[in-house]
Amino acid sequence: MKHLFYDDYSEGAHPEILQYIAEHNSDQQRGYGRDDYSELAAKRIKTAFGLPGADIHFLPNGTSCNVIGLKAMLQSYEGVIAPASGHINTHEAGALEAAGHKIIWIEASDGKLTADLIDEALSRYEDEHTVVPRVVYLTQVTELGTVYTKDEILRLIAHAKTKGLYVFLDGARLAMAIASKAADMSARDVGALGLDMFYIGGTKNGGLYGEALVIQNERFKPYFRSVIKQRNGMMAKGRFIGLQFARFFDEDDLWLTLARHANAMAERLYAGLKELGVAFDLAPGANQLFPILDNAVVEKLRENYGFYDWRKIGADRTQVRFVCSWATPESKVDAFIADVKQALKAG
Amino acid sequence: MKHLFYDDYSEGAHPEILQYIAEHNSDQQRGYGRDDYSELAAKRIKTAFGLPGADIHFLPNGTSCNVIGLKAMLQSYEGVIAPASGHINTHEAGALEAAGHKIIWIEASDGKLTADLIDEALSRYEDEHTVVPRVVYLTQVTELGTVYTKDEILRLIAHAKTKGLYVFLDGARLAMAIASKAADMSARDVGALGLDMFYIGGTKNGGLYGEALVIQNERFKPYFRSVIKQRNGMMAKGRFIGLQFARFFDEDDLWLTLARHANAMAERLYAGLKELGVAFDLAPGANQLFPILDNAVVEKLRENYGFYDWRKIGADRTQVRFVCSWATPESKVDAFIADVKQALKAG
Amino acid sequence: MKHLFYDDYSEGAHPEILQYIAEHNSDQQRGYGRDDYSELAAKRIKTAFGLPGADIHFLPNGTSCNVIGLKAMLQSYEGVIAPASGHINTHEAGALEAAGHKIIWIEASDGKLTADLIDEALSRYEDEHTVVPRVVYLTQVTELGTVYTKDEILRLIAHAKTKGLYVFLDGARLAMAIASKAADMSARDVGALGLDMFYIGGTKNGGLYGEALVIQNERFKPYFRSVIKQRNGMMAKGRFIGLQFARFFDEDDLWLTLARHANAMAERLYAGLKELGVAFDLAPGANQLFPILDNAVVEKLRENYGFYDWRKIGADRTQVRFVCSWATPESKVDAFIADVKQALKAG
Amino acid sequence: MKHLFYDDYSEGAHPEILQYIAEHNSDQQRGYGRDDYSELAAKRIKTAFGLPGADIHFLPNGTSCNVIGLKAMLQSYEGVIAPASGHINTHEAGALEAAGHKIIWIEASDGKLTADLIDEALSRYEDEHTVVPRVVYLTQVTELGTVYTKDEILRLIAHAKTKGLYVFLDGARLAMAIASKAADMSARDVGALGLDMFYIGGTKNGGLYGEALVIQNERFKPYFRSVIKQRNGMMAKGRFIGLQFARFFDEDDLWLTLARHANAMAERLYAGLKELGVAFDLAPGANQLFPILDNAVVEKLRENYGFYDWRKIGADRTQVRFVCSWATPESKVDAFIADVKQALKAG
Repeated sequence: MKHLFYDDYSEGAHPEILQYIAEHNSDQQRGYGRDDYSELAAKRIKTAFGLPGADIHFLPNGTSCNVIGLKAMLQSYEGVIAPASGHINTHEAGALEAAGHKIIWIEASDGKLTADLIDEALSRYEDEHTVVPRVVYLTQVTELGTVYTKDEILRLIAHAKTKGLYVFLDGARLAMAIASKAADMSARDVGALGLDMFYIGGTKNGGLYGEALVIQNERFKPYFRSVIKQRNGMMAKGRFIGLQFARFFDEDDLWLTLARHANAMAERLYAGLKELGVAFDLAPGANQLFPILDNAVVEKLRENYGFYDWRKIGADRTQVRFVCSWATPESKVDAFIADVKQALKAG
Repeated sequence: MKHLFYDDYSEGAHPEILQYIAEHNSDQQRGYGRDDYSELAAKRIKTAFGLPGADIHFLPNGTSCNVIGLKAMLQSYEGVIAPASGHINTHEAGALEAAGHKIIWIEASDGKLTADLIDEALSRYEDEHTVVPRVVYLTQVTELGTVYTKDEILRLIAHAKTKGLYVFLDGARLAMAIASKAADMSARDVGALGLDMFYIGGTKNGGLYGEALVIQNERFKPYFRSVIKQRNGMMAKGRFIGLQFARFFDEDDLWLTLARHANAMAERLYAGLKELGVAFDLAPGANQLFPILDNAVVEKLRENYGFYDWRKIGADRTQVRFVCSWATPESKVDAFIADVKQALKAG
Repeated sequence: MKHLFYDDYSEGAHPEILQYIAEHNSDQQRGYGRDDYSELAAKRIKTAFGLPGADIHFLPNGTSCNVIGLKAMLQSYEGVIAPASGHINTHEAGALEAAGHKIIWIEASDGKLTADLIDEALSRYEDEHTVVPRVVYLTQVTELGTVYTKDEILRLIAHAKTKGLYVFLDGARLAMAIASKAADMSARDVGALGLDMFYIGGTKNGGLYGEALVIQNERFKPYFRSVIKQRNGMMAKGRFIGLQFARFFDEDDLWLTLARHANAMAERLYAGLKELGVAFDLAPGANQLFPILDNAVVEKLRENYGFYDWRKIGADRTQVRFVCSWATPESKVDAFIADVKQALKAG
Repeated sequence: MKHLFYDDYSEGAHPEILQYIAEHNSDQQRGYGRDDYSELAAKRIKTAFGLPGADIHFLPNGTSCNVIGLKAMLQSYEGVIAPASGHINTHEAGALEAAGHKIIWIEASDGKLTADLIDEALSRYEDEHTVVPRVVYLTQVTELGTVYTKDEILRLIAHAKTKGLYVFLDGARLAMAIASKAADMSARDVGALGLDMFYIGGTKNGGLYGEALVIQNERFKPYFRSVIKQRNGMMAKGRFIGLQFARFFDEDDLWLTLARHANAMAERLYAGLKELGVAFDLAPGANQLFPILDNAVVEKLRENYGFYDWRKIGADRTQVRFVCSWATPESKVDAFIADVKQALKAG
């Protein structure tokens, strides 16, 4: 059986999550997220991020968070500024455009926006003939495996606000960012950034499914459940996402434990590959690595491992993606490094 | 603690479902529904319905099935014929309209369309100024608790086809319909109806979340996954819905066992209430009852039970909805009947 | 050559309109409605309706006014209350739904909403599962040829406001309503109704194309030009609609002169048909008549006249629509009455 | 009074167009483009382009053509490949995204796509997570004033077809392209390109409003009028656009005469400016020039002329846009060149 480094959702769910669900399965609860467990989870998240006044909604997946959250933030004639590599721009099948909104995308080689890039996007606006930019979309951890430092993201948000823009943060891997040494941000730091809306990924961090969307800006709170329902994000048995997040954010901070493991395994793999002389164009900030390898090496590795090609580099080399997760065993990392070593030698 | 007859999603999940998930949690699987368990579940569903050539997709909830399925069936200028009481028309927050399509709704006092009602809807079409009707939307069990008999639905579908219409069946409670004596239809009968698309509800029948969408018409198979992704219905860990349906459709036909129990409890409750002289305007076909009670009785019952008001009837009476599920204990039904008896006496 | 009573757009444009365009054709003007003539027309409209603070926009056709105006008034999860016979519900090919919004339609046999009908529509709203009703859509003259009296419409608007609803008035034939004895409302009366938005039709009243949209509510003024552009309603040479309305609203009130003629011809035709014993279910308020005739009579008349069938009444009779316009000659009306008399005798 | 070189819609309409309208104004015609004049215009266009089997529709403006045409060509999950400078991408306020579709834009410094650029766009497609590219959008004349040569566009279309793509050509200035020496293409050449859909601009070429959309591919003909109506592009008095195009395409080929004049004036201006040493980054192909001038010169010229700034070039220079039209007098061109000379001397 090949070991898979495709992504952080090849795994099942963390056993503690399953157990918690099983333990709280036999009572009756109100539907559609009005249950006791969703309430408990929301309370715990608010405490963890230091956001007692936030509204928390549990949605089935990341695209739902992005589309529903952004839809609620945008008037019909407004658009979103995003890095070209942003998930909404590349891998959501045009979901935001299908909801009626243009993505004003900007090339950013490390997947991170800056004040200057925002200004570049804003300079495209003229008048009623051009889309009105209204929201900045960030991801933390980015799709390229990098992270914003606290300082970077604070400056970015401050700049956006002076320009009348709102900020939405896609946190599909927010746990890994908070567990990241490079980012150096606690959950409380994230809560204090002044974001208008963000979400905390559960699926990629040991959950079965489901993410927690956090609304900080009062403006976007009313009728948000209408948007959820209309965009098919409302779960009748809302309790089951609530239970997962209640467990993630229980006293032992399971969500961070799992994210730290994912990052540690990626760091171990990175160190091992660096030692072998493997090339990287960006330093990884969390649990994703994008090494550049000779095609022959890639093909050799593919015999025993699962991973995605990211892009061709010239005729002979390929940048690939290796992702570690809460479930990646240290032994597999070590075995993989050894196999890369063999492949390099043979290549 | 009040007992809740609100609906069939106040409960958790059936323990066998949870156990099956726990047993198949530790391996790695491909994401986005390309896993072995989704494949197994699809195979079992195809066998159960006698549809070896169908495409099966697993979506997180019923509104996703309706919106994604209908979106894939409709050109931008086309609309859907539905009974006024249809779920897409009443309780999906305008999801289909948000996806761009008009619902051409027709009053149907028992929640069921007929050939005549379809003709009435078709008569509204004139030319390019009016919406082109293209799909007929049915629910089985209907939102009013009634069921189509096999003969009724066959005639309806035949009529629709002669008019160039496609047929989509919302089967949020399809298991209960197949378990219904009134409907008298097996899963194979459903598969042989000639539907273009339908879905089989899991959430209301003991699942955690998730429904199985079945595409019969070849025309709607290509690029369907693009529509799922674009309409935020694609689950990264698709295995977990797959596992639920693999268990539902295992050799012991758990899905039917659970639906039969829900129906039996509703039947028991119906018989008990009828004996007490409670009024009904429609005979229930499955697990939902809509009795008409004096307001005083309703208020008395509400002290110890959870249920929804359906509609006011004049100043003094209310039609309410009682729903039984796979988890409703017979003892609760009997206790409830006794309490209704008391309330009627006091009223 | 058949004379056509199909509608009020079978004719060309009033010669004075063409002449005014020709006279002001040779100068250079700013594009997109920023020209001097649009400004002049807006000023004249504001004076005529007593609305110095209103925003005026010139759009190419009525559906543009309805879709663009309502889109600007609605959040993504909101819908519009309309009579079943409302133009947006019947003859705009689902344009409002294509823009994402449900029409909550209510049967109204005379095409007019009332406070009770609005309450009926509001009673369908429950919570986030149902569409949030936000705007009331009225037409004056209605699609059934009736008119609201000043008192009727004032009560309706007052009621809507107490319910937190906005009011949009489709005035494709507003000139005919203001010229109508039955409505008894001046342009100033319309301006004082407290509408949030309305439009004044030009096409059906002797223009080439184009309507004037009037925004009274401050809330809907910002970024309205963005909505116009995004919904393809912005005309590069805006001057040409501006010129038409500048002429309509010049000192001689051409718009009312034309509408009065249309109404007078319809009144003459109505009186003539009544004298012949022709049946009507509704008294016409302006320039449209909906007589009920035996099928044989209808077919006989169709040999020499153009008009639309409206609906079949049983097997033997048809309700038809006759429309008079600014261009209908009195002699044609008289000749038509004579021909109806012949046809009735023969029938 | 300043002379305006803003664009080709600052002018009124050509007097012959107005006269033709006035001459054919007094008869009755069927509404919504079913009139004799629209039929005549369609016939003449089909002859001019050698496309006897094409469907012709008359729409009020260019954005309507782009949105309605592309909407009809796209399934809900499909997107459009366009150069970054394409009108749909830059100056339609997100109209195509509001209709649900992503624009997959590609940088093209001269505004023209090539086979390689199409391949670059196609390389972004992976699977159901990425938007399915289906249509290539071209403009001829481009937004940067350049033109495709016959050979360039033929190679491009051939390449697109081998990739399963359809081709839509935005011909807001198609007349100027056909009148362009650089393009060297007749109307018959355009008809023979194998386009799936294109439109011929009238507004910018001396019309009042309105463009002619030509559908060549059978696949997009059915129900096209439904799309027009639903996207508010249907004009009740369709005759008036029909009349304009009937006159444009009358025996004297007025449309080409006007375009040739616009091009000749631009050529004269270009030659004059070149002689003065003014810098250009692209050679103009038709009636738009984009000279690069010192800011001081720009400000000086703005005192007596109207024109748009296109983009800042460093701190000291600006690229501006000068547009000539059918109505630009030779004397104004010469006077303008003289004024530029003065300004350069003073600068």
